[in-house]
Amino acid sequence: MTDVIRIGPLNPTHRNQVEAIVRATGVFSGAEVGVALELFDETFTDSGQRTADSDYEFVGAFTSDGSLVGYGCFGATPATDQTFDLYWIAVHPTAQRTGAGGTLMTEVEQRLQQRRARLLVVDTSSRDDYAPTRRFYQKRGYEQAARLRDFYGRGDDRIVLTKQLPAAALP
Amino acid sequence: MTDVIRIGPLNPTHRNQVEAIVRATGVFSGAEVGVALELFDETFTDSGQRTADSDYEFVGAFTSDGSLVGYGCFGATPATDQTFDLYWIAVHPTAQRTGAGGTLMTEVEQRLQQRRARLLVVDTSSRDDYAPTRRFYQKRGYEQAARLRDFYGRGDDRIVLTKQLPAAALP
Repeated sequence: MTDVIRIGPLNPTHRNQVEAIVRATGVFSGAEVGVALELFDETFTDSGQRTADSDYEFVGAFTSDGSLVGYGCFGATPATDQTFDLYWIAVHPTAQRTGAGGTLMTEVEQRLQQRRARLLVVDTSSRDDYAPTRRFYQKRGYEQAARLRDFYGRGDDRIVLTKQLPAAALP
Repeated sequence: MTDVIRIGPLNPTHRNQVEAIVRATGVFSGAEVGVALELFDETFTDSGQRTADSDYEFVGAFTSDGSLVGYGCFGATPATDQTFDLYWIAVHPTAQRTGAGGTLMTEVEQRLQQRRARLLVVDTSSRDDYAPTRRFYQKRGYEQAARLRDFYGRGDDRIVLTKQLPAAALP
């Protein structure tokens, strides 16, 4: 039986689930989990309101029973003309065959296309355990634009993937 | 008569001078000036204390009469092993023959070397008006590591320069 993944907004109550998802992927270091939560905290204030001036936007993937199983985080790259960073797409390992990752990606791209985004940029690592991540993006049209040797650490290069978004057909 | 440039700390009272310096360089867009001030504001609280958890560090270049004529802003790149971003070195045009830029650069590199930084990363633009900036870094051992086409805008590529810092000779 295949569960249907629904897209929906995140709110401050999802913090623990976001942390659990990022940890469960097994590819992120403690520092990276910290960064993921820092972006979350900068976006969602304690009062439950989305911070108006946050540079980050979140979108969640939910199962039919309302459980959060994945999320995407993206935002405009400061001081660029319509370039956006895709900071994370993370899906809990138990949901990685449900298409949640692809559904999140499609949602992010559609939203950005409506806003006439021009270029999407994803940073990832050259490490072997990121091979599925790189394949995920490459299958969806992201191309390697740069490789920064030893960026994350010795032998751990930064791979920059980019995708040009077609001009949206808007009414 | 050549004035001697002194290195010193910044504090919240320098905000207007920082803005004046960045604007006077003539190469930064309004959005980029906004980013420069955002980093400043994230670092210096209204109470005059440096924010403990800021990701940014500032260093100023002063003339002998105490005027701020340039500054550098740098910080550890999150989730990396000893990689640092050099966000800006900006010097007021009236002081660009005083060696203030080189003095700031040397100061930043020495501080980072003492902290066993491994890699310094600078992002800059491919535009013609950034040619002096690129030469400034290249003369000081920064090498082009990547070029991201149309990153800032159409025809405005992002150039990533990096410099490996030698292991510091520490006592």
